This record gives sequence, structure tokens and C-alpha cells, in this order.
Amino acid sequence: MKHIGTQTVKLQYPPSIVAEAAIVGQKEGEGPLKDSFDQIEGDAFFGQDSFEKAESTLVENTFNKAIEKSGLQKSDIQYAIAGDLLDQCIGANFAMRSIGLPFFGLFGACSTMAESLSVGSMLIDGDFASHVLVGTSSHFCSAERQFRFPLDYGGQRPPSAQWTVTGSGALILGKHKAAPYVTHITTGKVVDMGIKDANSMGGAMAPAFADTLKAHFTDTGRQPSYYDLILSGDLGEIGKAIAIQLCADENLDISPNYNDCGCMIFDNQAQDTHAGGSGCGCSASVLCGHIMALLRSKMLNRVLFVATGALLSPTSTMQGESIPAIAHAVAIENELS
Amino acid sequence: MKHIGTQTVKLQYPPSIVAEAAIVGQKEGEGPLKDSFDQIEGDAFFGQDSFEKAESTLVENTFNKAIEKSGLQKSDIQYAIAGDLLDQCIGANFAMRSIGLPFFGLFGACSTMAESLSVGSMLIDGDFASHVLVGTSSHFCSAERQFRFPLDYGGQRPPSAQWTVTGSGALILGKHKAAPYVTHITTGKVVDMGIKDANSMGGAMAPAFADTLKAHFTDTGRQPSYYDLILSGDLGEIGKAIAIQLCADENLDISPNYNDCGCMIFDNQAQDTHAGGSGCGCSASVLCGHIMALLRSKMLNRVLFVATGALLSPTSTMQGESIPAIAHAVAIENELS
Repeated sequence: MKHIGTQTVKLQYPPSIVAEAAIVGQKEGEGPLKDSFDQIEGDAFFGQDSFEKAESTLVENTFNKAIEKSGLQKSDIQYAIAGDLLDQCIGANFAMRSIGLPFFGLFGACSTMAESLSVGSMLIDGDFASHVLVGTSSHFCSAERQFRFPLDYGGQRPPSAQWTVTGSGALILGKHKAAPYVTHITTGKVVDMGIKDANSMGGAMAPAFADTLKAHFTDTGRQPSYYDLILSGDLGEIGKAIAIQLCADENLDISPNYNDCGCMIFDNQAQDTHAGGSGCGCSASVLCGHIMALLRSKMLNRVLFVATGALLSPTSTMQGESIPAIAHAVAIENELS
Repeated sequence: MKHIGTQTVKLQYPPSIVAEAAIVGQKEGEGPLKDSFDQIEGDAFFGQDSFEKAESTLVENTFNKAIEKSGLQKSDIQYAIAGDLLDQCIGANFAMRSIGLPFFGLFGACSTMAESLSVGSMLIDGDFASHVLVGTSSHFCSAERQFRFPLDYGGQRPPSAQWTVTGSGALILGKHKAAPYVTHITTGKVVDMGIKDANSMGGAMAPAFADTLKAHFTDTGRQPSYYDLILSGDLGEIGKAIAIQLCADENLDISPNYNDCGCMIFDNQAQDTHAGGSGCGCSASVLCGHIMALLRSKMLNRVLFVATGALLSPTSTMQGESIPAIAHAVAIENELS
């Protein structure tokens, strides 16, 4: 079996990342990673008449851009695998009307980029597909009004709050051919440490990150220093600090080579984004933009991408529930060890 | 490649269905299939203090029952794959806190049973797992208040409306060993024919059913008569009639051996369930109860299970959107052809 240890798959014929695309909104396009995106859209409505339709259009545009960059025809791609944060995942589901590929919908909250990458890579390695399109999205305005307050209300945000990224990222995966490759997949369990503060998602998700990281290093026998970069999804400044400590408690020193997409996409001081970026589109647009560029230019050769998701809903919060979280890790490497 | 035609996978080492479990609520336990369920729970709250927590407990109980019936330890099972209808899939996500397996969350609305069975079967056939737990749930009370009206409002239901099943079904899949086997998987595309009536889901989903069926028969070269039973998820009485007609338009005569879980689980006249049952738990509990019993007793030997999902949300409906739908087909057979 390709399963090693308890939670990890070592891919037999590591799939290639054939192409990638990332599209973001105006605010993300003014941040430190502005040069890494395929497109920066100034219109928060993306030409539509609602923020939810805007998010769906963002997904369509990003997925079509990835297909275009791959040089493939849609008929060369057997599956699309995607999801988002919106109730009933209408961002991805409505976009799939025009994308028109056989479709598996996921819900993994902000872990969706890693989840879709995991499932897609296994479908290719298992010889069920030659190409798979994976990706996800989030939109500040659709998330804010669904999970928090109407935008017009102008609610104050505590310093621990994060800013949902308007962005989408997509990858086209293909059969083993050229670097970068997806080499290992460590699938997370739901971890709930009892945190109930929906304005401190990083703190709620950090234990899931540490749990999956521990499993990854135990299963693979690798050390954190093996990777050029260990990258969490959207723990933000507070979650990042907790994650480093929780890993240290497990004798995993990730501090020299660890960063978080939520700490990278905005200049949190200058852009008033408090603890950092969040949302499925945060890790998706950072991975498919900035990180993929560094992998292709060989500035990075070994990346462990660990997207984290907070699996709460407004209903569960109103019912006094704590916040379950999950983290999925995917190793992306330019050379096979 | 194991992919044949445009949308179908023919599994190389068809996975076995090792065990199954189905738990339902009181009303389902008074219907025609009452003797096929593992448990009928009289308390709509399942001992909890909200309907959402009740649904999560229903999932926990059903998944644990399937594990118990399989005789396996949790450590023998590498993945759980599940989802539900609730915003952010809190039915499955919260249940996974105690189930504790590496977890892929799905959103496929009422197609989730077929979707989870599809992905789980590929993970086993691809040698990524020896056992996978798949399943889904719905709860009348949590769905009604999320998608329609508060229960206390006592809203009138049109004759085309369906009744969300309180139920959950789960399967344990294992490596190729003993019948019944999962032999073919046809993955659906999102189909949207412009229907906007959220009280006529069967009509909205029937075209997706016909689309996937057409792909399945084209890809496999099989005829509808090959199967002892072609079983749709929850099209209900109206959707079932439309489905037969749409298939006939494609020269597929399914009328002799076709039925719909939504038409089977209730006595729609006597139980006042209008056009029939619906919800992820409808097809899940019918498949994992009644149909699996018929497969194990060899009363049925070739079943094509086609669960359909309406991918709308209350927000999309309020914004005037039509209803995208999807259908995934899975062939379950006692002998390999």
C-alpha cells in the first residue's frame, strides 16, 4: 500500500503540477505579493450584481486561466475538484456550470486548497485521470456578511481578527513528467481544543496544524529542516506564534523555515488587516501565485504546504459550540528523494 | 488509464463493501422500509439540545455502527469521507471530532452518498487505503429551518415539495475480496436547465440524472437492461417521471428496472410526504439499509446507484439564481463481468 505510517501517502508516480493560476482583488493586489498574481481585479463585484455571484465569477476566471496556461483542452482534463466557504459551496458549484468538467465538490473550509490537491493527486497517481483541475476561492464581502456582519454595519474588528482574502487559486495536475511534483500527502483529523472565539481562528486552527505536522514527520521520517519552506494556510500572526510553540512542544523546530500565507499576503500594519489574511483563497492564491513561482525558478525546491480549516458555522457558534479544525499537508518538491 | 469514455472509471480491483449501517428517525421507521434499518430513533433530538447537534450525533452513531459491524478497528481504516447539507457541513464535521479518522469533507448536496462512495472506492483501488468509511446524513428539522421555514411557522407545502429524510447511511469499503463490489464510477457534471422552483427539486435534478446516465451507458457500452435496478437518489414522484422521459429521449428505456429512493422510503399518500423523500440521508439510508440487504441476499446482483444533488443555497435562490444539479453513478455488482 502507498499509505505509510498512520496518515500519509507516498505517491508512487508523483504527479506534476502542469499549470497554475491565481486571481485576487484590489486589496490583495496592493500587498507584498502583488507581482505574483495572474490578475488583480479592481471591481469587487467582478461584473456581477452580488458578492456571491462575484465569487463564482472569480472561480470561473481563475479556473479558465489555469486551463489556458496549461495549453490543454477541457477534454484532456477528467475531473475538477473544488469547494469554498459559502453555504452549500455556491462559489464553486455555480462556476462549474460553465467549466463543465466532471466534478467532485469538497468542503474543507480554508483547508480546501490542500484537500483538493490531495484528492486530485491521488486520482492521478491511481491512474484514474491524466489531468485534474483543483482549486478554491474566497471573497471578503461574501464571507464577511455570511460569517460576521453586514458590510454596511461597519463592525469593529478585534486585533485577533483576520481579513478574508478575495482570491482564488487553481492548479492543473498531470501525470508524472516534470517538476514540481506532489510527493507526499498527510491527511488531517478533526482537532477541537475547545476554543470558541470566532474572532481568533488562528488559535483554533494551530493545534490541527501541529497535529498534522507531527503525523507527517513521524510517517515520513523527515525532519522539519528537510523542507526549504513549511507553509501554513491562514493561521495569521497569532496562530503562527502558537503553531511554532505547539510544534516545539513536540520537538519539532519549525521556526527557521516556517511561514504562513496569512502573514504574507498583506502588509498587516499598513493595510489594517489585523492578524493577517484568511479564507480558502488566501492559501490558494499564495500557493498558486508566489510559491509556485519560487518553485519554478528553483528558489524553493522542497515545500510542505499545510492548509488549515476552521470547520465552524454561524449556527454552531450561536449554539455555543467550539471550533473544530483540520489541516492537510502536501509536499511539493522539484526533485525526488 | 482506468478512465473509460469521458466520465467513467472502471475499477481495476473492484473494492468490496465490507459493512454498512443505516439509522433513521421515527417517520422513516414507520415507512415501507422500516425493517431494513439498523436503528430507528424516536427522539428527533437524538439526546441533544439542537437539531444540528442531533444530526451530528446521528452521523456519529451511524458511522460507529458501520465500524462495529465491520469488525475492524479504527486503526484499520485510513480515511473517512463524508458531508451533509448543513451550512459548512457541520453534521459531518462535528461528528468527526469523535470518529477521529483522517477526513476528507465533501459537499455534493444529496449526491454525497454516491460522491463519497466514488472517491472512497478510487482511494482503495488506487492502493492508498485498505479501508475507507464513507457516508452522509440529513435531518428533517435541521434542513427545514435552514432551507425553508422555521418549523413552528407550520408553512404549507406544495404537492411538488419533498420531505427531507432524517437518516444517515455509511459504508465501509475494503480491498477486493468478497461481493458486493464497486465496479464502475461515472462522475457527473453540473447541469442547470434554468429551473428556479426550490419546491420542485426533483424536476431540477432529473436532467443531471439523465446526463450522467447517458454518459454511463455510452462509456461502458452497457444497456439499461444490464442492471437489476437503476436507483436514483431523491428525485421523488415528479422527478422520477421526468427522468424516465428524459432517458427515453436519449433512447434509454429505464422504465422496467428503475426506482427512486425518494419514492421508496415513505408511503407518500399515507405519510403525507407529498412528492417523496429527499435529503442526503434519503439515498444513503435506502442504499445502506434496504438495497444492501437485497444485494447481500442476492435478490439484486447488479445495481446502478445514482444519487442526485441540487447545488442551490437559500442565498442563491434569493438572488434569483436557477438550481444547478449534479448526479454521480456507482455500479455495485455481486459478480464481475
